[in-house]
Amino acid sequence: MWHLGGMTSETVFTYGAPQLKFGSGAADEIGFDLAQFGARRVLVVTDAGIAATGGPRRIADAMKAYGIEAAVFDGVRVEPTDASMREAAGHARETGPYDAYVAVGGGSSIDTAKAVNLLTTNEGDLAEYLNPPVGAGRAPERPLLPLVAVPTTTGTGAESTTVCVLDVLDLRVKTGISHPRLRPELAVVDPDLTMSQPPGVTASAGMDILCHALESYTARPYDRYERKRPEERVPYCGANPVSDMWAEKSLSLLSRSFRRAVADGEDREARTDMALAATFAGLGFGNAGVHIPHANAYPIAGQVRDFRPDGYPDGEAMVPHGMSVSLTAPEAFRFTFEARPERHVRAAELLDPRMERPDDPAEHLPLAVLRLMRDIGIPDGISGVGYGEGDVPALVEGAMKQQRLLATSPRPVDEEAVAGIFSRSLRLW
Amino acid sequence: MWHLGGMTSETVFTYGAPQLKFGSGAADEIGFDLAQFGARRVLVVTDAGIAATGGPRRIADAMKAYGIEAAVFDGVRVEPTDASMREAAGHARETGPYDAYVAVGGGSSIDTAKAVNLLTTNEGDLAEYLNPPVGAGRAPERPLLPLVAVPTTTGTGAESTTVCVLDVLDLRVKTGISHPRLRPELAVVDPDLTMSQPPGVTASAGMDILCHALESYTARPYDRYERKRPEERVPYCGANPVSDMWAEKSLSLLSRSFRRAVADGEDREARTDMALAATFAGLGFGNAGVHIPHANAYPIAGQVRDFRPDGYPDGEAMVPHGMSVSLTAPEAFRFTFEARPERHVRAAELLDPRMERPDDPAEHLPLAVLRLMRDIGIPDGISGVGYGEGDVPALVEGAMKQQRLLATSPRPVDEEAVAGIFSRSLRLW
Repeated sequence: MWHLGGMTSETVFTYGAPQLKFGSGAADEIGFDLAQFGARRVLVVTDAGIAATGGPRRIADAMKAYGIEAAVFDGVRVEPTDASMREAAGHARETGPYDAYVAVGGGSSIDTAKAVNLLTTNEGDLAEYLNPPVGAGRAPERPLLPLVAVPTTTGTGAESTTVCVLDVLDLRVKTGISHPRLRPELAVVDPDLTMSQPPGVTASAGMDILCHALESYTARPYDRYERKRPEERVPYCGANPVSDMWAEKSLSLLSRSFRRAVADGEDREARTDMALAATFAGLGFGNAGVHIPHANAYPIAGQVRDFRPDGYPDGEAMVPHGMSVSLTAPEAFRFTFEARPERHVRAAELLDPRMERPDDPAEHLPLAVLRLMRDIGIPDGISGVGYGEGDVPALVEGAMKQQRLLATSPRPVDEEAVAGIFSRSLRLW
Repeated sequence: MWHLGGMTSETVFTYGAPQLKFGSGAADEIGFDLAQFGARRVLVVTDAGIAATGGPRRIADAMKAYGIEAAVFDGVRVEPTDASMREAAGHARETGPYDAYVAVGGGSSIDTAKAVNLLTTNEGDLAEYLNPPVGAGRAPERPLLPLVAVPTTTGTGAESTTVCVLDVLDLRVKTGISHPRLRPELAVVDPDLTMSQPPGVTASAGMDILCHALESYTARPYDRYERKRPEERVPYCGANPVSDMWAEKSLSLLSRSFRRAVADGEDREARTDMALAATFAGLGFGNAGVHIPHANAYPIAGQVRDFRPDGYPDGEAMVPHGMSVSLTAPEAFRFTFEARPERHVRAAELLDPRMERPDDPAEHLPLAVLRLMRDIGIPDGISGVGYGEGDVPALVEGAMKQQRLLATSPRPVDEEAVAGIFSRSLRLW
C-alpha cells in the first residue's frame, strides 16, 4: 500500500463517460445522432481491414437519410504512429472542414480519430501534446468537434477513454496523449459488428477487457493519493465507487460469456455480453486507470521478434494488445495481492464463481486468470511469444518508462519487482 | 407483463449522464470546471432557504480565483411553477447574458435552472415546450449553455435527469419538460453540503432515492417496447443493464446507511453513502424511468389540504416529494410483483438482507419497504397525510394523467388498479 506520510489525502473523485447507444442495429442510427449535434459534413475514420467488411461505407451511407454528407478515410494504421496520425489529420484538413468525426474500428481507429479531432481544432504539432517526458503535455485550448466512436473489436474501451496511444517512430517509444477533451461524445456499441471476429481475436481482445476490469478494481484507491488542486486532477483518478461497480459487473459478464464467445463466435448472447463487458470495463478503467499488466504490455508488444498470432492478418510479427497485457497479469496480481487482499479474492470469485478456493488466498486470482488463459488458447507465458530470460532487462526497462501507469499500482513497484514479475511469467503453467 | 403481439421488439437502449465530481470539498472547485467550459460570467440559481445557509454565495465567491464573475439569483420557488420559472428566466435575460449556469439546491433549483437555460438559449414560451398533452412538446433547436448542478438535498436526482418538473398554475396540473439537452453537463456532489439536513428531510428525500432505485429496477424492460425509430427514442427507455447496475448499487448503499443518516445527521460516512446513493439512483432512473409510485405522488402532493411535515419550513401545507412517492410504493410493488417476480425479491434482498423471508414472495418487497418507512418516521399511509376513502377518485384522476410514467410500469395499469392501490394505501400498518 502507498503511504502518504503526513500529507492530506484526496477526498474527491471524478467520473466522465460518453453518452451510450447500445444494441443490435444501433450503428444504423448514427446519422440521427450526428444531426442532433448539428453536424452536416462528417469524416468516417477507419482502417483498410475494417473498410473491407463494408461496414464503414454502410454506416456512412445510412447517414444520408438525415441530411449528412459523409466521406470515408480508411488509411488508419493498425498500431498507429505519430506519422500515421499526422497523415490522417492532413487528410482531414485537405478534404475538410468537417463538423464531426465518426471512428469505426478498434482502438487504432478510435485513437487516430481522437488525434485528428485534436489536430484539426487546435494549433500546434502532435509532439507538443504527447504525455511528458516524451512531449510537453500541452492541453488543447479550444473545444474539439463531436466524435462518435463505433467499436468493432470488443476490447479496447477506447470509446470511453480520454487517451490516444501511439508509437513515436524517431524515439522508438509507445506513448500517448491524455486530456478530457479527447473523450468521444457518444459511443455506439452494436454487437452485430463483432460477429465476424475470429476466435483468436476474441480471446486476445477479451483478455484486454478482463485486465481493464481487474486492474481498475485493484488499482490504488483515489483516497490514497495526496489531495490535488483542481488543475492537477487527471482523468485516471484511482479506484473509486463508480469504477468499482463497472469492474464488478464486467467481471460477472466475462465469467458468464468469455469462454462461450471464443468457442462459438455466432453465439449472439455471448457476443452481446462481451460487447457490454468491454463497454463497462472501459467506463471503469477510463476513470480509475490501469497498472502493472498494462505497463508491461508496452515492451512485450514493442520488442516482438517473430511471433505471429492466429486470427490476425499475416505479415508483420506482433503480440496483440490484449495478449501482451495478459501474459504478466497472473504474476502482477500475485505481487499486488498484499496491498488489497479482499479485492483480489472478490475479483477471483466474480470471475470464476465455481472454482475451488486455493488454500493460499493470494493464489486465488492468479489461478482464476491462468485457468481462463489456458481454456481460450492464450500462450503459456512470455516465452510463448518468443522471449527468454535474457530479454528480461530490456523488458523491464520498457515497463519502467510507463510511470503514469505504475503509479496506479496498489503496491509501490520498483525495477526489481518488475524484473521478478517478468521472470516468473516466462512460463506460467 | 406488457405484450407486444406480433410487433418487433426493441433491441437498443441509450444511456446518458452528466460528468461527475464527487466528494468533500468538490463544491469549492466549480470555478475551475466552469473555466474548462470557457465560462466567464455565470448565474448561480438557488432558493432563499439555501441562500440563507451562505452556501451559494460561498460557491460564487470561490469562482473568482478562476477569473469568473458570478451573480446569485435566490428567487427559485420551492415546487416551481410556470410563473416562477418565467420570472427566473426574465431575471437571467435582464441581468445577462451569461455563458453558464450553476444550480445550487434541491430539485426545485436544479429544475428552474434547466428552464432558465432553455428559455435564454431558445426561442418560444415555456408553454410550448411542456410535455403533451399539456404543451406541444417542442424540442429545443439550439444547444443550451453548460449547466453545473450542485445538489444540496440527497434525493431528487435532478442533477442526472433530462426533465424539469413544474406546476402549471392556470391548469392546476403538475407536468414537465423532457429533452436530452436539459441534462446538466456536470454534477458536483459534495456531501458536506447535506450535513445540515434535518431528520425529517433526510427521511423523505431518502424515500425518493429508494423509489427511484426500486421503480427503475422493476420498470418495464427496454426490450419489451416496440422497436422505435431513432427520432422516437425518449430519455426514459425502460430498465436496461446499465440502469439495473446503478439501482442495485444504490439499494446496497441505502441498506447500509439510510436508517443511520436519519438517526444521526452528523454521521459523515452515512451522509456520504446517501449522497452517493442519490447520485447512483439518479443515473439509473434518469435513463430507465419511474412508474406507479411517482405517478401517484403527483396528486398526493398536489391535492394536499393541511398536512405540515416535521423538518420543513412552517407555513404552507405540503407533502414532501419523497414522502408522497413512498406512501403508495408498498402497494404498487405488491401489484407489479407478478410481472417480474425475481426482480422484486432481489430488490428486497438488497434493501434488507437480514430480514426474514415471508412465505409469500410477493410480500417480500412491500414488507421491506414498510419496515423502513416505520423505522424512519414516514406516515403510515395516505390517511397519515390527510386523505380518506372519499378522496380516492380525485387521486386516481390525477395519477391517470401521468401516462408517460404509467407506461413504464412492468404490468399494464388501469384506473381500477390505481384505485385499488390508493385504497389499500390508506393505512399501511
